[in-house]
Amino acid sequence: MKVSARNVFNGTVASISKGAVNAEVTLALKGDTAITAVVTNGAIDNLGLKEGMAAYAIVKASSVVIGTDLAGAKLSTRNLLTGTIAKLVEGPVSCEVDLELPGGNTISAVITDGSAKRLGLKVGGSATALFKASSVILGVS
Amino acid sequence: MKVSARNVFNGTVASISKGAVNAEVTLALKGDTAITAVVTNGAIDNLGLKEGMAAYAIVKASSVVIGTDLAGAKLSTRNLLTGTIAKLVEGPVSCEVDLELPGGNTISAVITDGSAKRLGLKVGGSATALFKASSVILGVS
Amino acid sequence: MKVSARNVFNGTVASISKGAVNAEVTLALKGDTAITAVVTNGAIDNLGLKEGMAAYAIVKASSVVIGTDLAGAKLSTRNLLTGTIAKLVEGPVSCEVDLELPGGNTISAVITDGSAKRLGLKVGGSATALFKASSVILGVS
Repeated sequence: MKVSARNVFNGTVASISKGAVNAEVTLALKGDTAITAVVTNGAIDNLGLKEGMAAYAIVKASSVVIGTDLAGAKLSTRNLLTGTIAKLVEGPVSCEVDLELPGGNTISAVITDGSAKRLGLKVGGSATALFKASSVILGVS
Repeated sequence: MKVSARNVFNGTVASISKGAVNAEVTLALKGDTAITAVVTNGAIDNLGLKEGMAAYAIVKASSVVIGTDLAGAKLSTRNLLTGTIAKLVEGPVSCEVDLELPGGNTISAVITDGSAKRLGLKVGGSATALFKASSVILGVS
Repeated sequence: MKVSARNVFNGTVASISKGAVNAEVTLALKGDTAITAVVTNGAIDNLGLKEGMAAYAIVKASSVVIGTDLAGAKLSTRNLLTGTIAKLVEGPVSCEVDLELPGGNTISAVITDGSAKRLGLKVGGSATALFKASSVILGVS
């Protein structure tokens, strides 16, 4: 399987909480981190997803917001991953930001080039990747 | 009505399943395919959406992930549409991928140019467009 | 706090309606407008969100669809903000569209350049920004 999404994280299903339409799934990753996903109940059934199973989380780079100086800020995004800027690819409209995370994972974000300049992003600097639980796609092999 | 979203699919509401906040709607398209959407209950009421009604699904190109070699892969995305790559528009950061689907529809995705190269996408090749039910906007005329 | 998302709107929590997994939150903005967000119940608890509290809504430019000639169209997106096109930044694949809204706010969208040309967008023209409740991130200071 190959997908265009830049961000694929392997983990283990830690919890599944079902509602009437949607379910919230927590995926434990290596390095004591976790990713929270909201998918439809139908998807849980299709995947045969159960606690303890190996699964992976896919996050499109365009769903990821980059933040800096977030101390004290409270945000509704369930997923916040802080790392070091490893690469910046700038275009006329868009900018790709690659963060190296503790534990060896990398996360890519596509933001506007105007935002990259406004935040003063530089290779080697610290930044946080934030994305909503509803932006996460789950997969099993 | 004109919207910037590249992907507008006409269909018929096949089912509506309401939860406390969200509802899942299945839209039957021509050619035996279907699109699943998750929208708020408030949206269902605003639209006056009922089974059997004509409606359309709008999907932003940036919400669409492109996959290849998906045989055996199980993904939580409710919507998977496989087609033939008709066009690629490459930029320094982003790449637009247009797929021709069976039945005459087309779907556009915007992915990073790095991903397009990594997947080895070529005009005439096969690929699958995947997008979450929560990425779908519904409309009625 | 600095985030890459171009669109940050300050407001007051007008209502919170909880489901089993998700909650719908309405944020009243100045100028008689409102933004509707769908976030997880866990996020509501993390933020300590209550009616009457000051909060802000963050919307990524890539989540925003641009529409014109919407009279008579009914769409499931809970958030529709009409304004005047203040700026267009065109690239080979993407185009940034900045709308000035009544009340002094601005909203940015990133759409494909092909769509910008198809819609005939011009500085000074009228357009509507639409985005799903599920695309909104909430924050409190």
